[in-house]
Amino acid sequence: MSTILITGGTVVGSAGRTEADVLIDGEKIAAVLAPGSTLLGTDLKSSVDTVLDAGGKYVIPGGIDAHTHMQMPFGGTEASDTFETGTRAAAWGGTTTIVDFAIQKYGERVMDALQSWHDKADGQCAIDYGFHQIIGDVNDDSLKAMEGLMGEGISSYKMFMAYPGVFYSDDAQIYKAMRVGADTGLMTMMHAENGPAIDAMVAELLAQGKTDPYYHGVARAWQMEEEATHRAIMLANLTGAPLYVVHVSAKQAVAQLAAARHAGQNVFGETCPQYLYLSLEEQLEAPGFEGAKWVCSTPLRARAEQHQDQLWQALRTNDLQMVSTDHCPFCMKGQKDMGVGDFSKIPNGIGGVEHRMDLMYQGVVAGKITLERWVEITSTTPARMFGMYGRKGVITPGADADVVIYNPSGHTSIGLGKTHHMNMDYSAWEGFEIDGHVDTVLSRGRIIVDGNQYLGSKTHGRYLRRDPSQYLI
Amino acid sequence: MSTILITGGTVVGSAGRTEADVLIDGEKIAAVLAPGSTLLGTDLKSSVDTVLDAGGKYVIPGGIDAHTHMQMPFGGTEASDTFETGTRAAAWGGTTTIVDFAIQKYGERVMDALQSWHDKADGQCAIDYGFHQIIGDVNDDSLKAMEGLMGEGISSYKMFMAYPGVFYSDDAQIYKAMRVGADTGLMTMMHAENGPAIDAMVAELLAQGKTDPYYHGVARAWQMEEEATHRAIMLANLTGAPLYVVHVSAKQAVAQLAAARHAGQNVFGETCPQYLYLSLEEQLEAPGFEGAKWVCSTPLRARAEQHQDQLWQALRTNDLQMVSTDHCPFCMKGQKDMGVGDFSKIPNGIGGVEHRMDLMYQGVVAGKITLERWVEITSTTPARMFGMYGRKGVITPGADADVVIYNPSGHTSIGLGKTHHMNMDYSAWEGFEIDGHVDTVLSRGRIIVDGNQYLGSKTHGRYLRRDPSQYLI
Amino acid sequence: MSTILITGGTVVGSAGRTEADVLIDGEKIAAVLAPGSTLLGTDLKSSVDTVLDAGGKYVIPGGIDAHTHMQMPFGGTEASDTFETGTRAAAWGGTTTIVDFAIQKYGERVMDALQSWHDKADGQCAIDYGFHQIIGDVNDDSLKAMEGLMGEGISSYKMFMAYPGVFYSDDAQIYKAMRVGADTGLMTMMHAENGPAIDAMVAELLAQGKTDPYYHGVARAWQMEEEATHRAIMLANLTGAPLYVVHVSAKQAVAQLAAARHAGQNVFGETCPQYLYLSLEEQLEAPGFEGAKWVCSTPLRARAEQHQDQLWQALRTNDLQMVSTDHCPFCMKGQKDMGVGDFSKIPNGIGGVEHRMDLMYQGVVAGKITLERWVEITSTTPARMFGMYGRKGVITPGADADVVIYNPSGHTSIGLGKTHHMNMDYSAWEGFEIDGHVDTVLSRGRIIVDGNQYLGSKTHGRYLRRDPSQYLI
Amino acid sequence: MSTILITGGTVVGSAGRTEADVLIDGEKIAAVLAPGSTLLGTDLKSSVDTVLDAGGKYVIPGGIDAHTHMQMPFGGTEASDTFETGTRAAAWGGTTTIVDFAIQKYGERVMDALQSWHDKADGQCAIDYGFHQIIGDVNDDSLKAMEGLMGEGISSYKMFMAYPGVFYSDDAQIYKAMRVGADTGLMTMMHAENGPAIDAMVAELLAQGKTDPYYHGVARAWQMEEEATHRAIMLANLTGAPLYVVHVSAKQAVAQLAAARHAGQNVFGETCPQYLYLSLEEQLEAPGFEGAKWVCSTPLRARAEQHQDQLWQALRTNDLQMVSTDHCPFCMKGQKDMGVGDFSKIPNGIGGVEHRMDLMYQGVVAGKITLERWVEITSTTPARMFGMYGRKGVITPGADADVVIYNPSGHTSIGLGKTHHMNMDYSAWEGFEIDGHVDTVLSRGRIIVDGNQYLGSKTHGRYLRRDPSQYLI
Repeated sequence: MSTILITGGTVVGSAGRTEADVLIDGEKIAAVLAPGSTLLGTDLKSSVDTVLDAGGKYVIPGGIDAHTHMQMPFGGTEASDTFETGTRAAAWGGTTTIVDFAIQKYGERVMDALQSWHDKADGQCAIDYGFHQIIGDVNDDSLKAMEGLMGEGISSYKMFMAYPGVFYSDDAQIYKAMRVGADTGLMTMMHAENGPAIDAMVAELLAQGKTDPYYHGVARAWQMEEEATHRAIMLANLTGAPLYVVHVSAKQAVAQLAAARHAGQNVFGETCPQYLYLSLEEQLEAPGFEGAKWVCSTPLRARAEQHQDQLWQALRTNDLQMVSTDHCPFCMKGQKDMGVGDFSKIPNGIGGVEHRMDLMYQGVVAGKITLERWVEITSTTPARMFGMYGRKGVITPGADADVVIYNPSGHTSIGLGKTHHMNMDYSAWEGFEIDGHVDTVLSRGRIIVDGNQYLGSKTHGRYLRRDPSQYLI
Repeated sequence: MSTILITGGTVVGSAGRTEADVLIDGEKIAAVLAPGSTLLGTDLKSSVDTVLDAGGKYVIPGGIDAHTHMQMPFGGTEASDTFETGTRAAAWGGTTTIVDFAIQKYGERVMDALQSWHDKADGQCAIDYGFHQIIGDVNDDSLKAMEGLMGEGISSYKMFMAYPGVFYSDDAQIYKAMRVGADTGLMTMMHAENGPAIDAMVAELLAQGKTDPYYHGVARAWQMEEEATHRAIMLANLTGAPLYVVHVSAKQAVAQLAAARHAGQNVFGETCPQYLYLSLEEQLEAPGFEGAKWVCSTPLRARAEQHQDQLWQALRTNDLQMVSTDHCPFCMKGQKDMGVGDFSKIPNGIGGVEHRMDLMYQGVVAGKITLERWVEITSTTPARMFGMYGRKGVITPGADADVVIYNPSGHTSIGLGKTHHMNMDYSAWEGFEIDGHVDTVLSRGRIIVDGNQYLGSKTHGRYLRRDPSQYLI
Repeated sequence: MSTILITGGTVVGSAGRTEADVLIDGEKIAAVLAPGSTLLGTDLKSSVDTVLDAGGKYVIPGGIDAHTHMQMPFGGTEASDTFETGTRAAAWGGTTTIVDFAIQKYGERVMDALQSWHDKADGQCAIDYGFHQIIGDVNDDSLKAMEGLMGEGISSYKMFMAYPGVFYSDDAQIYKAMRVGADTGLMTMMHAENGPAIDAMVAELLAQGKTDPYYHGVARAWQMEEEATHRAIMLANLTGAPLYVVHVSAKQAVAQLAAARHAGQNVFGETCPQYLYLSLEEQLEAPGFEGAKWVCSTPLRARAEQHQDQLWQALRTNDLQMVSTDHCPFCMKGQKDMGVGDFSKIPNGIGGVEHRMDLMYQGVVAGKITLERWVEITSTTPARMFGMYGRKGVITPGADADVVIYNPSGHTSIGLGKTHHMNMDYSAWEGFEIDGHVDTVLSRGRIIVDGNQYLGSKTHGRYLRRDPSQYLI
Repeated sequence: MSTILITGGTVVGSAGRTEADVLIDGEKIAAVLAPGSTLLGTDLKSSVDTVLDAGGKYVIPGGIDAHTHMQMPFGGTEASDTFETGTRAAAWGGTTTIVDFAIQKYGERVMDALQSWHDKADGQCAIDYGFHQIIGDVNDDSLKAMEGLMGEGISSYKMFMAYPGVFYSDDAQIYKAMRVGADTGLMTMMHAENGPAIDAMVAELLAQGKTDPYYHGVARAWQMEEEATHRAIMLANLTGAPLYVVHVSAKQAVAQLAAARHAGQNVFGETCPQYLYLSLEEQLEAPGFEGAKWVCSTPLRARAEQHQDQLWQALRTNDLQMVSTDHCPFCMKGQKDMGVGDFSKIPNGIGGVEHRMDLMYQGVVAGKITLERWVEITSTTPARMFGMYGRKGVITPGADADVVIYNPSGHTSIGLGKTHHMNMDYSAWEGFEIDGHVDTVLSRGRIIVDGNQYLGSKTHGRYLRRDPSQYLI
């Protein structure tokens, strides 16, 4: 077991920052100390195995991306990042924990599905990982299985109000599952879009010859996100289930969440970097088939500036609690191009697990969020929301030594051939420039990225058993 | 300089809790360490001067009461606690910092007023103290003086929309002061009640022979708090000043604050224990003149349960950010009794600086707030809100060693002859029972309360220069 | 063709009242004249065939009940009023027009269904009648048929978000139908309750042995009405269809309608007398199986006073536009009793077509609505909403002479053996006392009720072809 | 007494339209009849003195402008229209009733002030006129006088939250007056702008050398209208007074009114044509001193399109109830030019009494309101709101024969030398083109405008005693 001292940095937490040294002993943080490297006469610097100089830099808890889909089967293909490539890319970007989704498909048993996801991830991950459980087939058997999830270290499950015929749950199924959610303490996660109405609109558009990627965004109108968000809130209200809405992109959906929270309901929401920076007109409407790069659901929004402003504001006011990526990468060649001539056949997803910490830090630079809020929405709240706090999401004695040294004087250029370790043949973020840089990344006390060098290994990451949410109001 | 090790406790912060030891070196926290009392081979327990065993107890940052009025002149008398008696009582109750109000009266110069408050407090306080500046006479001279407040370590000032002829500022004055507030970064604090309309109603009631304490609450109708709150918000919106509304008691005022925050405005609010527990009918309407004990402004509310429920909920959802006491004690004999036969002559105020930590902890016991939220609303947020974070409000290396060891297995009976160190001849909280107890209190590394023994001194507390608010959204 | 002069009364319209005589010539109103019965020298009184003295009474346009279900098949039985008995009862109560629902069932063709309703009603009605079309099976054929409805004199159609397996439309179907609604100008009427979730809750309750009528109200929670109302609004927002929500009973659903209207959307709502006067606890929870009398959907609400207050207020503020009965009578014996031991088998419905005008007039007496508003919500707005204005809903030259002389000095006792001409073996309104009385009723110039005598005939009523709504904002 | 028959027109009321003839006998409407001009055998056409052919035209109740200021003293000058010139201009434009404001100034007695307004108007008016009473000095004497207003035929009074030192009432005064308003049934009218804060901003701007008319609009920020509107609502809520807010121009103020109405409070609002069509940037910011033409309070708004859209919508949804002009004309030469170099010295006001009916009709042409709503907001609701219904605002037997024949095939070009009978040396509406025309105007049975000819006289108009509001909800 080795010891590491991070000296001279500014330790940033969700409530404030302090000049302090961080002592790591093995996999854990052993102490946070006043700077100076001596304690009761002990010269720490010379006592530890390794000293990391963080002078002029931020020392933050490693990023937690609570929404990724590695190797996810979708629309006849599979998300292009394996757990190996995806978690390595995450590590490069300062993310030290992901929570991926195990998927129970129609006709499958929940625990079998979960096991198959364990099989995919086990021994493949550069960083620690947990699972949410997708319930794609709500029935008596899966409802029963849900009661066992907490025992598997899984404190959250997800349903889809979109994708009829694939993952879709109808309102009766949602009602039944939420009842179990309320009884067991599982967090209900929801993809909130009105799938049946959207699919009717898709058919209408295709029948009119409107087949370009752009129409993906037209079909998935904000009204259908707002509606489903409200419906999920009301079903949660009726059943007593805590609710977490994923990938919120429409300001009207934010307003629904805010109203429910103001009324005291345990309702939460995440947004993703793509909804904070990208738009229907600039990306989805790109010439030819280029727009397919940004086909994801919920979609990029039209006249996105108003939505983006509201989403940033919601992150400031805590109307939204955190930022995940919904990382679900597909290559243009052989995957996205399945949808040439029919936007509905384009696999839905954008890759971004590598860039979340940087993209959100740019929000600090731009004055949209504070440094503390950056740490909160990318690490501390994800940890609390999904039952990992104490081990993850905070720099405190006893916590896992998942630490990032972030350099505000550094610079990061995003794009292929620059920073791009995800298994994708394009970058959804090509050309974005970040006024900061991930200098060093530690996962459970091990330095896995340092000075643009990858030092990790796919056998390092471990499955993370999660507790019930620590964020309920 | 002595060293202290607090071992075996649960350190509670605003985002979570952790089992950790706290090492204090002189006036500061030197380290937070994994429990076990060894560090790289050093046996800390035997190295420090004092070991405090916190096994089974909570180790929390000392309470911060950001709203007290020691020795305040009001209505021809003076609040009955001096800085000496008031801060000692605060210490007994686990509060290690107060922010009191220096008052510029009509015709006075601001800096003279401030100096006179320094004179009152200097060398009299058991704990550290800061000042907000009341601007009771907005004019060219006082507006100019406001620009110098930050240099005095005062990052907040207060105006009154109530009390015409005493502290009242009209909307033109508020506009002008807020302009300075916006330019200088001072936080504008507001007593938000429509004084002119209230006074008209008071005259109306007295003319009808309605002179009992009860009518104090009738005259100060919720509409007049809601109205003034909204008006303050709009003036802040126009000028760009950050706004903090004191002693919020009506749910409708909370709704105004919540709406403004949801719209992204820097608007904040505190409530006080009296609005969370007491009511017009149960207290103010007590037989005879007893109700005078609870005459304060804003008043206790009618049908208070609905307001109380909303206030607790607002504390959970962060629609309200913190809890202060508005400690402003008057004795029944010789003070409150000035208003026999005319409720408008009763000095306005309730004493409670001693009981805030306990009363709010009872909210944890009752399931109304979490343990973490208790620490946040009584210490961490007050520190951040008023520019003290880093030194106060958090247990982190480099911070002042203001620490409370709170015992969840203890018990506290509130009342005269039990726990009552305030200079009052009655207790507004007589008979309240708390399922917890303040065992030990440290102020800047000195143990000032321990095992029901007071070990402090009035020369210990120091004036605290504050920075700009660290809480803006 | 005969002529009638109604003299001495107060003609009441939606905007005000005036002392005036009404001259009827044949089926139409010929003139409204200053009182006195002379005009340019003509002594009208002696020139007309009949003079009706309305001194001290109100002369109002005949009531329009836009929501009735005569002889409706439901749950293996049929609503107990035929068009003959139902329209005769309506006439007794001062209602001179009904709009009933023709029902396309699953597998049926729309125009066949409509024809069968014409067959039921033709030659059977005491008063004029129109039809809304229920689309119970949204498919390509029925969507096509909807385009022909306006040509049949049908300017509105209805869908159900409740009753899966019976009338239920899913959101894709609703989307498609609303598209046609937007294009054709048909008003979309909606039964807004989340059927799938309700049915899941019903199954849950029955499995717990909760089989009494009371649980009908528990299962159909307000959340499920609020939710469906909001969903319908959003689908209407997306498609551009005007929307009319039937039988609104929950205050939260009213709030949704109000918000959409405030935002400028063409959204309307009706409530029914049962939601203004009756409650879950007082009626549905009646001992034994008695509660079955009041099983209807939406249900009577728990703690109904708050809902009732809001519904009355919404009628005042025009957040709700009108009052219908949802008349759907079933006898206790042989019909309601099908649900002994299983509340879900109780036919849903309450009879009230006879009492609407009286029950709403009692709201005038109680000071809840004005006299003018009474006329507006029971006659003028129904006429405008459903394209009958000019012929119905107003006393103006050229309009059909559908006139009621209402006596504010009269009295009406509701109940079996008193006023009860509906074909039911109980009255849902037994014991209600009304401070007013329907003295005389004219339908298209014919006196059909006079002095507690029925003078009508089942061959008098004619099918009423309706125009597009005249109420859009 | 002469008789007139208006034949062949479409009579338009607030709820609908009908083809009907209107018979006038002397000053009153005698009958509304089915078209055809015969009644029980009488040939009306040949029986009456005069026949007016309204074929293809609308027959509407004469316009009621409930907010005018003839000969009003303001800022050292006087509004340029006398009662003679102003009411004649009104008649030209199809307005047959005005309600002007009698002004009690500081130090004056209310009844003296009222008498002096009677003196100004008596024998000078082309059309009927009533008075609201301005209470510019709320004191014991004026409060007492308010109790006598209803006996003078005055059912409404007005206060100003703006103009400190001139008409301004503080909140104590407003409270006291509203108490009387609630007790007497008088409608409280309010100029809702925060005068003290606005004046502070005015001084600030002038001190910065910002003296152009444009800054009038900057100083009177929407926040100050929204704030005062809300404050007035809350004071009305507390006292129980019905409230009518004049000249609403900011969408945020509309939202406050709408929320209060939705909550069931008797709160109403008018807007004016200038806020529906004109803007800060297009008019107030005109080059040089031209902007002074449109200096009025509340001011034209910045980025007015959003406000205009909301105001039109509010007129549709009845969030605003009616449209007045706030007619308060000043000439550029000798009046407006008093403010060259200091915008605060420009007399506040725009003339428009002549054009209201036309400008609002253009809203019908543009599809913003329906024909019926045009009549409602310009005539029927003003009559109901201010206690004139039955005599004014409706075409019904017994009502005053104030009738306008409006030609939808006509055309009106607004501007000097075209249609401009107001005593102003410019038109605020120069260049506006209207797709309609006032063909004929009758006041109490007398034809005062016909075919672009003025046939009225200044001795015709009579003082109109008004009843309490007939519009309370």
